[in-house]
Formats: sequence, structure tokens, C-alpha cells
Amino acid sequence: MARTTDPVELFDAARAGDRGALARLLSYIERGGELARRVGRLAYPLSGDAYTVGLTGAPGAGKSTLTSATIGHLRGLDLEVAVLAIDPSSPFTGGAILGDRVRMQDHATDPGVFIRSMATRGHLGGLALATPEAIRLLDAVGRHWVLVETVGVGQVEVEVAGKADTTVVVVNPGWGDSVQANKAGLMEIADVFVINKADRKGVDETRRDLEQMLELSDLPHDAWRPPIVATVASTGDGVPEVWDAVLAHREHAEQSGVLAERRSFRAGEELREIVTNRLRERAREICTGDRWDELTEAVVAQTTDPWTAADEMLGDIA
Amino acid sequence: MARTTDPVELFDAARAGDRGALARLLSYIERGGELARRVGRLAYPLSGDAYTVGLTGAPGAGKSTLTSATIGHLRGLDLEVAVLAIDPSSPFTGGAILGDRVRMQDHATDPGVFIRSMATRGHLGGLALATPEAIRLLDAVGRHWVLVETVGVGQVEVEVAGKADTTVVVVNPGWGDSVQANKAGLMEIADVFVINKADRKGVDETRRDLEQMLELSDLPHDAWRPPIVATVASTGDGVPEVWDAVLAHREHAEQSGVLAERRSFRAGEELREIVTNRLRERAREICTGDRWDELTEAVVAQTTDPWTAADEMLGDIA
Repeated sequence: MARTTDPVELFDAARAGDRGALARLLSYIERGGELARRVGRLAYPLSGDAYTVGLTGAPGAGKSTLTSATIGHLRGLDLEVAVLAIDPSSPFTGGAILGDRVRMQDHATDPGVFIRSMATRGHLGGLALATPEAIRLLDAVGRHWVLVETVGVGQVEVEVAGKADTTVVVVNPGWGDSVQANKAGLMEIADVFVINKADRKGVDETRRDLEQMLELSDLPHDAWRPPIVATVASTGDGVPEVWDAVLAHREHAEQSGVLAERRSFRAGEELREIVTNRLRERAREICTGDRWDELTEAVVAQTTDPWTAADEMLGDIA
Repeated sequence: MARTTDPVELFDAARAGDRGALARLLSYIERGGELARRVGRLAYPLSGDAYTVGLTGAPGAGKSTLTSATIGHLRGLDLEVAVLAIDPSSPFTGGAILGDRVRMQDHATDPGVFIRSMATRGHLGGLALATPEAIRLLDAVGRHWVLVETVGVGQVEVEVAGKADTTVVVVNPGWGDSVQANKAGLMEIADVFVINKADRKGVDETRRDLEQMLELSDLPHDAWRPPIVATVASTGDGVPEVWDAVLAHREHAEQSGVLAERRSFRAGEELREIVTNRLRERAREICTGDRWDELTEAVVAQTTDPWTAADEMLGDIA
């Protein structure tokens, strides 16, 4: 691996196939700030060819196993693939949830596969900013199939998952019994449903449950209707059918203009996120210093209310 | 119930015991914006007496059952109690996860108990802003014990849970086997651990697991060491002991100055959140109009990169 820390040299090395250089650039993106922006500006003009497939679902649904099986299928078709496994970090320790990732290590030595766990510490805007940048970087270095795996539990995670070109939602037989999963959110973002662990009982009920929810969701007559594919990801059963469903959705999305619309919407969202983040950085600059400490103490002592204090700190800005 | 929509009249009615008026004011807070700020300014000077107890844990750990049993215990002590059940909304539909809340309906007709589910639609700052405002309102109308129940899955939820005066983390026997729970985050915020469903096997192992994690977390010599209480919330076993542990933590926190520090930190956090939110509103104003649409299209067409576009929109602000 190139021993440089310079983004331009690393970018050239990554384009020439240096995986260590690519990994380091992704770390820059993860960390955010000026260095991330420099990587972004390098990758941007060379991106635009990647197709992203999101895989999401409740913890334990078998997303990582399905991702791993999908990698195997794509390698069989002689396609190169990159995987971004999005780890929501603890706000306190930055510790990533990595348990399942070991299942992907089967592919660790295959040069046609690049797997990366992404975690961002600190502010909530992190993943929303870092994920599209990481995808553009992978795109720019020639990885045109990018699988994005996220845990579909929280609002941020579902938002990130819903930003793929095609989103696969993984459920299990019997998920209808669980009131805890973020069902409504997952229904909205699904382009393909996978009922994984279909060797267990309850597949037909789950299929009916999903179909009923699709009926209720009142899709327009000419809209894409998410197909429902049963799989046993651990044996590979149904995995080619999942990929066929992804390709069918891609074709529909390209021809109907949905893909262009979705990408345009996404670009707007990202731009808004960049603007918001810049304002957040500005807020961090504002919320500091002696006057800030005085106002905080005044709020605690109930001599000033928080809105009046905020007004004073913001001054002319907002 | 008062048929007015005026916040001042509703506030007076709520202070006189009108639950419908209180519910309406909480809706104003949930929705955010100018009306929420007016309610906030009314409640602020009359608040400062409430003590908040957070209850959090993984889905299915039995938080709602424990909350319900705790309400019963407090009513037995002739204390009035309010419960805020925080529902992270779907970003797409605003649909709240309400399944478990039915368990609390036992107390629905008791005038000494006020239970409210809170959900905020849209932006992520919502819960962080609305929760302290809702607590101040409950405080101002005379509810001085406030239980805040959240699902401890995502980053936002854990952050909200960690902002209580005393935070109770609910786990189950065998949670040590699960790699999916946000353990590190939950460890950081726990003032009291509850091993609920302690009629199942594995209680001793779970206790050892928690004790080991507490050892590793390297607490200062004189710091509070979270007690570990075993409960069967569905029968009420152990519930008085949980409450005793909460009171013991409260006493420690008051006498050691930890409570004052925590509240001061929280005030700073809230002030920062208000500032950030005002900047976010400003960003929404910026991110609109013809020039915004043009720049978004230019980003999609790859004739401008997103950072350059953001610079142009922000101008002198940031």
C-alpha cells in the first residue's frame, strides 16, 4: 500500500487498484471535515456510473448472510462488487455493531470484492453526509455495483437505506407478529421484499401480510409493485431470484424515469444536508466562550429562558 | 375540557387539573414552531420541581410492563406520576410504534396518572427539543415525578433516555448473547440496571456480565456504581426495590453535586439544540427558490459539485 497520506496520491493509487489506499480514503470520508471534502472533490467528476442496492431489515433478519450470498452470486456472474456496511455508532463510545460482519469474511481475500464497515462518531448528520461520498469514491475507483447494508431500526438507518437506487427489505417468516419493527418505514422504502429463512414455517402468511400491506399502501396503477422473493440465504436458495428482482426494478426505474427522479431528489437532499452541516459547524462556533457559559448558567438558574438566550447568541445570523 | 385553542387559557386550565388542556398543550409542543415556543415560555418560570426517571432498553425487554408496575408502586405511595412514552416516528409516515402502550391502560382512569405518547415527525432535532419542553410543562402543571420511557435502539433514542435525572436500563436474562443491542451506549447511561423477566434462567450470568462490564468501565473510586435489580415486572416482583434504587441514586446525585452538573450540562445541550434548530430553519429558507433548483440540477448533471453549490447558497451566513 502507498505510504502517503496525501489524498491526491492516495486517490491515484486507489484508482490503480490499491485497496489500502481506498480504505484510507474511506477513513478520511468517515472522519468528515476538510480532508473529507478534498476526497469528495476528487471523486465527484469521475463518479456517475455506480448502481447502489440497499439491503435493510430488523436485527437478526439475515441481512449479512444475504449480502454475502449476493456477493457470491455476483462473483459467479464475473461482476466486481463493493459493500458498505453501515454501523450506527454509539453516541458515547463510537463503538460499532460488528457482530454479523464476520459472515462476510468468506470474500475477504477475493480482489473482486471490497467490503467496508462505515461508522461515524458524533453528530447525526454524519452518516447522511458520509454515505453518498463513500459511494462516489467507490464509483470513481471503478466499483460500479455497490451494496449498502444497514440495520433498519432507527430513523437515521432507514433514511440511509432508503437512498439506494434499489432497496431490498429483508423480513422473516412471522414478522407480522412483531409490533416492534419499524414496519411503516420499511414498507415505504422497499423496492424488493425478501422473506429470508424461508425454511421456517409461516412463509405464506408473511407473503399474504406483505401483499395486504401493499394493497393498503394504494400504489398508483402504473407504479412498480415490489416483488416478494423467498430465500434461505445460508444455503443460497432464492438468491439468484433476488438479484433478478433487483435488475427488473432497475430496468423499470430507468425506463419510467423513477431512477432519474430519485437521484435528483437525493442530490437535493445531500445539498441540503451539506448546507445544514455547515450551519451546524457555525452553531458550534457560536455556542462557546464566556458569554455562552454565562447564558447557560442563567438558564439553569431560571433567570433567562432558553429561547431568549438562543436569540442573544444567534444575533443577526438567524 | 376547555374548548379554547389559546395557549394561555389552556395553560391555566391545565394548571387547574384539566387533562384535555394538558394533552392539547403537549400536542403544540410535539408539533414545534412558534406555538411550541409560546407554551415553553409559559411553562418555564413555573418549572424546576420535577424529577425525571428514564426507562430504556431493547424492544421486548419489558419496559412498558415495568413502567406500568412502577406507576402502581408510586400510586401505592400516594404519589402522582406522569409518563412520557417516546415513540421514534417513521421518517416517512410519522407512524408511532404503539404496540406495548396498551399495557399502561390499567392506569388510564386514575386522575393521579397522566400518560402520553410523544412522537415527532420530520427532522431529527424534534425529540431532543420537544422532550425537555414536555417535561417542563408537566412540571409546571404540578406533575413532579415524570417517567420517560424510550426504546434504547437508535442513537437518538439513547440520547433522549440518557438525559433523565436517573436512568434505568432494562435488560433480560441472556442479553449477553445478543450482539445486536446497543450495549456500549446503554452501559454509559445506566444509573440503575434492571434484569427483568428474572423468572427465566440466566439471571446470575447476566448479573455477572453486567458486573464485569462495570469493572471494565473503570468508574472513579467515589462514583456511583449502578445497582443491579432483578424483577418480574408482570407480577410486580422486585419493583419496590427498583424504586428504592432510583431514590438511592437521586440522593447520591443530589449530595455529590452530580445532579446539578447533569442539569447544567443538559441546559447547555438544550440551548445548543435550540440554536442548531434555528439555523436548521434558516437552512430550510435558504434551500428553496429558483437558484436552489438550478444548483440542484447542476449537481445532478455534474456541472457543479455539491460543496461549491452549498458555498454559493450559504453566502455570508456560514
